[in-house]
Amino acid sequence: MPDWLYSGPQKIINIGEVHLIEQQGFTVWMTGLSGAGKTTIARIVEAELLGRDLKIERLDGDVVRQSLTRDLGFSKEDRDKNIERVTFVAKLLSRNNVGVIACFISPYQAVRDQVRAETTNFIEVFIDAPLDVCVERDVKGMYAKAIAGEIPNFTGVSDPYEPPVNPEIVIHTDQETPEESATRIIGYLEEHNFIPTAIGAVATNR
Amino acid sequence: MPDWLYSGPQKIINIGEVHLIEQQGFTVWMTGLSGAGKTTIARIVEAELLGRDLKIERLDGDVVRQSLTRDLGFSKEDRDKNIERVTFVAKLLSRNNVGVIACFISPYQAVRDQVRAETTNFIEVFIDAPLDVCVERDVKGMYAKAIAGEIPNFTGVSDPYEPPVNPEIVIHTDQETPEESATRIIGYLEEHNFIPTAIGAVATNR
Repeated sequence: MPDWLYSGPQKIINIGEVHLIEQQGFTVWMTGLSGAGKTTIARIVEAELLGRDLKIERLDGDVVRQSLTRDLGFSKEDRDKNIERVTFVAKLLSRNNVGVIACFISPYQAVRDQVRAETTNFIEVFIDAPLDVCVERDVKGMYAKAIAGEIPNFTGVSDPYEPPVNPEIVIHTDQETPEESATRIIGYLEEHNFIPTAIGAVATNR
Repeated sequence: MPDWLYSGPQKIINIGEVHLIEQQGFTVWMTGLSGAGKTTIARIVEAELLGRDLKIERLDGDVVRQSLTRDLGFSKEDRDKNIERVTFVAKLLSRNNVGVIACFISPYQAVRDQVRAETTNFIEVFIDAPLDVCVERDVKGMYAKAIAGEIPNFTGVSDPYEPPVNPEIVIHTDQETPEESATRIIGYLEEHNFIPTAIGAVATNR
């Protein structure tokens, strides 16, 4: 077996007359206010890519809080630790050809830049929605508590959110459906050859 | 492109006239006393498999303490958290076809059984060395501190070590060289088709 059959840095593997495009590792990093729609969109992207038999892991509060970050609360220090641990996991997955979809408020540009530096094929996705829309949605009842002063340092209420300076994708969730947003993210992954364009469409027999 | 070109549960992919054996995810879990030789052997296995262009991550104290478990000490609770976080990472990697080599004292059978339940292709490797040999080696000076009472709950000194009940591999590091031990572990991975037997030896052209 020639060793080029194995996954190295190369993206396209030639096997006989078939071109096989190998999935790249990547890190779709969704940042935005609580209630902006990160998880909703991430779940749609995840389901679509898993349906294509790609290797995908969604890292989200509900996933990591069970084991990885069970001890962490809302303080600045704890939120930093949260991102630090998730970054470690995203780094190991993405450099081994797994696609990571991460959803974290991650309000600071410096922290997001750090994640970018440590992970493979980092794609910063700004899930943008006006604060008053998020407050109105208040899916988890968090804004009510934050406004009442029950949760300190809550992003958008008592702690700043720094919008991404130069994100790869900007999504206005008050102007398009979650399905439209998911389609745009998947389109980006296809255009950059992180995933095959569509099964059946990429391989060519010469 | 037919969808069987993508990694599914199947181990062998037929492409034209070439048989391509895909790497499986696995979790080589090395358990044993401090100083038994876990890391030494793990580094040799890691280097050999990376040299074969396989996807490998070594999870070891020196790797995870930088970010994943930076806040943890030696208490029973902290050691449990340590294994819990590492297990989460090993689970995600091994189920995405990455080979994990983990080195942790992990003295309790129940905890190791839990790791087995959560990870893919778990291989319990008992790195066995008599306690007096480990104490004599005392690579990190930990036994001296533990015996002096400076580190409480130290496995083998002031805390029990439960030998694996039914490990896949037992290695007596006082009776063979680290290279011999590494060769045996790699042999096990090959025999169970978790990795190709050797590049060039597996594929057959009909």
